[in-house]
Amino acid sequence: MGLLGSISPKSLLASALLLTSLSQDVFARPSPEPKVPWVRKGSGRKKMAHNLKRAVEGERRATELETCAQTVTTTITAPKANIWGELIDVETAGVVSWLFAQKDLNLTLTDDATNWDNTIQLIEAMWPNKTDAVAYIDGNATAPTKYAHVVLNIRATESPYYADILVGPLPIDNKTASWEPLTYPYTKQSGGQVRNLDADSDLLYSDWIYPISASIADITLDLWNGTALGLDNDTLDIWGIDPLWQDDGRIIRWDSFWNLPTTEFDSETLLPLGLYFMSDITGRDPSQWKFEGWFYNNVFYETTEDFRSAYFSSCFKKLGANVDGAWAHSDRQGPVSPNDAAYPPESVAPAGSRFALDRKEKYVQWMDFTFYIAFNRDTGMALYDIRYKGERLLYELGLQEALAHYAGNDPMQSGTSYLDTFYGFGPYAFELVPGYDCPAYATYLNSSFYVAETTHTHINSVCLFEFTGDFAMQRHTTSAYTSATKNTYFVVRSVSTVGNYDYTFSYSFFVDGSIAVEVRASGYIQSAYFANNEDYGFKINDFLSGSMHDHVLNFKADFDILGTSNSIQLMSNVPAVKTYPWSKGKARSTMALERSFLETEDQGRFNWAPNSATQVLVVNEDEKNKNGEIRGYRVLPYTGAAHLTVLNSTNLGNAARWAEYDIQVTKQKDTEPRAAHAFNSQDVADPPINFADFFNGESVRKEDVVVWLNLGMHHVPHTGDLPNTVMTTAHAGVQFMPSNYFDIDQSRSTVNMVRINYKEGKATAVETFGQDEAKAAGACTPVYTPVEANLWGYTGDIVVRKFPFDPNNPYFGTDSIV
Amino acid sequence: MGLLGSISPKSLLASALLLTSLSQDVFARPSPEPKVPWVRKGSGRKKMAHNLKRAVEGERRATELETCAQTVTTTITAPKANIWGELIDVETAGVVSWLFAQKDLNLTLTDDATNWDNTIQLIEAMWPNKTDAVAYIDGNATAPTKYAHVVLNIRATESPYYADILVGPLPIDNKTASWEPLTYPYTKQSGGQVRNLDADSDLLYSDWIYPISASIADITLDLWNGTALGLDNDTLDIWGIDPLWQDDGRIIRWDSFWNLPTTEFDSETLLPLGLYFMSDITGRDPSQWKFEGWFYNNVFYETTEDFRSAYFSSCFKKLGANVDGAWAHSDRQGPVSPNDAAYPPESVAPAGSRFALDRKEKYVQWMDFTFYIAFNRDTGMALYDIRYKGERLLYELGLQEALAHYAGNDPMQSGTSYLDTFYGFGPYAFELVPGYDCPAYATYLNSSFYVAETTHTHINSVCLFEFTGDFAMQRHTTSAYTSATKNTYFVVRSVSTVGNYDYTFSYSFFVDGSIAVEVRASGYIQSAYFANNEDYGFKINDFLSGSMHDHVLNFKADFDILGTSNSIQLMSNVPAVKTYPWSKGKARSTMALERSFLETEDQGRFNWAPNSATQVLVVNEDEKNKNGEIRGYRVLPYTGAAHLTVLNSTNLGNAARWAEYDIQVTKQKDTEPRAAHAFNSQDVADPPINFADFFNGESVRKEDVVVWLNLGMHHVPHTGDLPNTVMTTAHAGVQFMPSNYFDIDQSRSTVNMVRINYKEGKATAVETFGQDEAKAAGACTPVYTPVEANLWGYTGDIVVRKFPFDPNNPYFGTDSIV
Repeated sequence: MGLLGSISPKSLLASALLLTSLSQDVFARPSPEPKVPWVRKGSGRKKMAHNLKRAVEGERRATELETCAQTVTTTITAPKANIWGELIDVETAGVVSWLFAQKDLNLTLTDDATNWDNTIQLIEAMWPNKTDAVAYIDGNATAPTKYAHVVLNIRATESPYYADILVGPLPIDNKTASWEPLTYPYTKQSGGQVRNLDADSDLLYSDWIYPISASIADITLDLWNGTALGLDNDTLDIWGIDPLWQDDGRIIRWDSFWNLPTTEFDSETLLPLGLYFMSDITGRDPSQWKFEGWFYNNVFYETTEDFRSAYFSSCFKKLGANVDGAWAHSDRQGPVSPNDAAYPPESVAPAGSRFALDRKEKYVQWMDFTFYIAFNRDTGMALYDIRYKGERLLYELGLQEALAHYAGNDPMQSGTSYLDTFYGFGPYAFELVPGYDCPAYATYLNSSFYVAETTHTHINSVCLFEFTGDFAMQRHTTSAYTSATKNTYFVVRSVSTVGNYDYTFSYSFFVDGSIAVEVRASGYIQSAYFANNEDYGFKINDFLSGSMHDHVLNFKADFDILGTSNSIQLMSNVPAVKTYPWSKGKARSTMALERSFLETEDQGRFNWAPNSATQVLVVNEDEKNKNGEIRGYRVLPYTGAAHLTVLNSTNLGNAARWAEYDIQVTKQKDTEPRAAHAFNSQDVADPPINFADFFNGESVRKEDVVVWLNLGMHHVPHTGDLPNTVMTTAHAGVQFMPSNYFDIDQSRSTVNMVRINYKEGKATAVETFGQDEAKAAGACTPVYTPVEANLWGYTGDIVVRKFPFDPNNPYFGTDSIV
Repeated sequence: MGLLGSISPKSLLASALLLTSLSQDVFARPSPEPKVPWVRKGSGRKKMAHNLKRAVEGERRATELETCAQTVTTTITAPKANIWGELIDVETAGVVSWLFAQKDLNLTLTDDATNWDNTIQLIEAMWPNKTDAVAYIDGNATAPTKYAHVVLNIRATESPYYADILVGPLPIDNKTASWEPLTYPYTKQSGGQVRNLDADSDLLYSDWIYPISASIADITLDLWNGTALGLDNDTLDIWGIDPLWQDDGRIIRWDSFWNLPTTEFDSETLLPLGLYFMSDITGRDPSQWKFEGWFYNNVFYETTEDFRSAYFSSCFKKLGANVDGAWAHSDRQGPVSPNDAAYPPESVAPAGSRFALDRKEKYVQWMDFTFYIAFNRDTGMALYDIRYKGERLLYELGLQEALAHYAGNDPMQSGTSYLDTFYGFGPYAFELVPGYDCPAYATYLNSSFYVAETTHTHINSVCLFEFTGDFAMQRHTTSAYTSATKNTYFVVRSVSTVGNYDYTFSYSFFVDGSIAVEVRASGYIQSAYFANNEDYGFKINDFLSGSMHDHVLNFKADFDILGTSNSIQLMSNVPAVKTYPWSKGKARSTMALERSFLETEDQGRFNWAPNSATQVLVVNEDEKNKNGEIRGYRVLPYTGAAHLTVLNSTNLGNAARWAEYDIQVTKQKDTEPRAAHAFNSQDVADPPINFADFFNGESVRKEDVVVWLNLGMHHVPHTGDLPNTVMTTAHAGVQFMPSNYFDIDQSRSTVNMVRINYKEGKATAVETFGQDEAKAAGACTPVYTPVEANLWGYTGDIVVRKFPFDPNNPYFGTDSIV
């Protein structure tokens, strides 16, 4: 989750840096300038043609097994164009140029804009309606007309707003191009407009936060030997809640003091200082904003005078500071364990990649699975048209939104409920680390997003790889033979670091036809100051609380099981007391199955049953297997499926109704493509997409149904979360598995199995089902190369200016929230 | 779960085979003779000195990376003897010899025994009481006196019984040796005796089942073109329920007809035929047994005459047969997927093994973990004295019992509730398949069990290996640096194939100090005949129901968190409506933590909370970390934690009360070492160990507590379970993770991490924390060798005769239940 409100006024003071320091200009809310001094020197617009060429082309890394005969991923041609693909450079450049030519939009270049200018927030591909998409991918229809989804930041008005518009058709032709408000995917009918609570964030620090901080500079110096004044030698930082309070027509913010890290490590969220202040920032005129009070050590002071008076009284209790140190740094520390310095086991690919890729269309074929990879600003990577043996299982599978809902006795923690698509998963899907995030032999793809008249490309930000698990997929032993099958699976992965937290998203495919969706969390926790808040977390360091929070991540799984006439069948194991013809009149305590179908969306919101008693099956009632059973896929929790603890959250209003249940089922509609809007936080009572409004009694039986699944973790950080949360246990996932979909287990078709017959102490047969032939056909001996030597190729993002369009002068620049 | 009742009288008819066909003589209930013809030829007593030498010594396999400098597992010396180790050959031989010398026991050699002779069922090491064990391993006490746990099968009586006795001290000295009934570990005070319902199983087929089958041979020929008469050309088999009905003082069995497989594959449990009969076999005189009726197609016939009459009437509906075929065979079938014939990725160990082993004491050190491996007949592998950084976390961690509770409209399925330790996990912990069950580079240990005056040794039946997961343990990226840590973990694994099902048990250890306990299930399902039983399973083939069943597996986790004064703390995330000093009188919908401790065993039986809301923490209240928080470990569900659906099962009575909840907590007592007894099935109303009796109100606060955890699967087999269940989703596990146990995440100490600093498109630092030095110090280049070539070394079990003791003439012989 990101950290809202940490924009530094230094970006204004040092306007000469504006062009080179893109980090201030990313999206609606300018991302805070990096707080660590040596980070501030980054993101230069240097041109390094050689490095860039290698990076932009997305070449496979040197660590891949070049000595092997089949190391290069097979190139294939996608059967259809990837209609969920990203815009190409000239398309984006055409749109931005055309937009600036529309005088009625009154747009200003982002770099030149003040808080009273309109800017282009986002340009990306508009994903087609499913109706149109399916007509194309399944039939003979032409590809859906391509449009750009554009977000304008309209600030030249007393009531600033974001405007979602469609621009097209693409590529732009001045004779045919037009724009229209994007309205149909939203439950709120407001012409595609969402109010912007951050329009004056540029003034917030200079005109409001730093003056308030200055008013108690003597206190901050006394308490922490530091100040937050917007000066280069500040050692304190100030930022606050997200979403802002939106009660009674007022816009209220609470801000908190934090120590700045003293090294390169991103430890600020571990350094809260326990002093908070409240501001009413309603309206666009800072002179009308109101200071509302201080909070310290569980006491609320209505005025600065009250606070000062108390502070300098003899009975005021001064609390200590959380100070940066090795405890907050992720580098190695402590004694090295026996043998740890030797290289650990590592996976190698002796025959190179065994999957096929259309790199341009981001179309993947592994064994009997095929799918397209999509990428957008809000939600990052998604998969489309996932097919197994030629039949579509899922039209769409992807993240919708991620919530991190905190709680606490202080207004900062209590008021924080990050909705991370506001920051976006796309902009922070950073370059992956080979050998760590993915095996060294993985294949990598790039991904791009638009910001401030440039397109940023994350190099190697999606990885594709096969892996053989440490356990078999199948086995059986008798006194005469043993049979076993390898569990080799395929993973598509991206990692988004939205501020302090790193989410590793994995979609895995298995040879039995099953699919897993997993998220793991690492990075820095957002902690709380430990004072009077034992009921909201453990004390994890000197003055530090591991602030309790719920992660809830919503995924859309738009199943198409043998077409779109699908139903949700529930099948439960239930205790039963039964008498049978053979039980001689005696009742027996046993169990039985109970089956039912969801009929309408009114039944469509529910949780995993206690004791895992109920199977959730997505089936096509009209498609039966040879035994007469309905063919389908089962959705089953893998680990950590969870919904939000908080009921009717004051912070969230209607902005995250999707978080209320584990499983939610709706009828698929082109007007309900996504569970949340990136700007739901801007109007929580009446957000652009209120997921609860999807549930209006429509039939979900023999319909095109969508299953919205929540993964999550109830996280009460303990000392093991210092310095970073570890992914051993911070893990949530669901699996989809065939249920009577085929006549037999599909993993029987792999050659990666063995049967050994044995007798009298000797193997009499070792059947390897053709594996031996593969060796003759070109399998190769991998040379193990420790991956570290190649990590010098890590580059960060590449930026290409779109207006003026300057495709031949890419430069490097990577922006993070903190 | 095993298949009860399939003993063939051919073993009696062909007495010449008795010595060479050990499979009939394993344990209480003689294991059924293998049903597949070519299996019957196995198990010869051939002496193959060369093969045996290699196998007995447990040499590392040729697939290990012999070319590398550090490939051999480091040899260490355990700090103490493994007091949970197996008996050595001479100890066992001494015990058996001494027992035969005790004339009052009136023992007969198993091979010579009739059903009216007493035999030695089992000789194995008696695990010491924890009180004595801890005095030795933690203090200066001498090792606990060694005793043998012996089970006698006392059949020379009208009321046959099993007798648990202790024999010792060991090694046997005729001057000091004595025996006494083993009574203290059982809740039933019956002198260590449990009635034996199987004493006359030798007669069951010859005198009872085959004559009944013969009485309708015309019908079986008409229906299935086969007979079950105990002849070599039988194509049908008959076996029945487990446990037997034990109502009203009567012993009732139901038996079912099955087709025999037509090939080598172990597919019989997929071939039910839908005809069942009931017998009252109370007492030891078959002439007094009563035939009670037939059941077919939901109709009960009280007599054979009734059944014959109905069968030959015009309106009788004859149902089809389940017939063996490719659908039931685990070999490869179907089209080969693209690229599947190329070698898939595989894990290699470039620096060889990084752990240390005392092979004799089965003592393991990996990174900062140490533990001892134990093995016994009932429950297979267990771990003792698990320590991390020198402090014990768990005194004992191991399987207690596994239940497979079926249900159905027919008496066979409805009456089946296998309690698998009756068959034993030890005898069926078969040789593992390198490259499939465990990575090719794993280190393997042997394990042994006693049967019929011999000791059988499973070669390579426990594997130890490190593995690096496909995802990182930790990561974080900013615009200036990225940091990531490898997730390299250590696994101890064994696989037990108890009849049709293969259980893969894995204990995994992670560098953050966490531990995972996992079980995966594969092998053949036990299916039902599909007729009138839609409410008990899917139809999965022609006349086949994937009979619903619950797997519940109980594990004992005897935590010792910084000593034995431990408590169970529950901490829940709960919704809360709160008003705060700063909330201006407004109530806020938020959440908070609620904490409590279990006080007594009365609160000790509970389930995982809905929405994963409650953490279960094992803590030492008197041991606080530097922040004042209680140090402990959290027990958290990984996937598939489940308890039994059936309430007060008619089949089980009091035999499996341990299956009723997810989590159960007791005060540790030397008299309650195990949750179940292997013979609980012999007296379900009043079993030797009734787990419910453990709960008698004792304090579990600041006490030595034991956590009994259930893993399980509600299994409703579908077509994807044909021919074998796959482990992609048939998986259950729990994790133990440090909770405020240390001051910081312990994975920070590994060198297997990297930090990359980057700026302007170039990495400016790649910090590898000493990994580079390891390379110079001898890491080696692994040569990838496809494992299949070495699978010719698969041998099966080795048998050593103990009476007369014949240690120099080992021979090969492997027994399985089917």
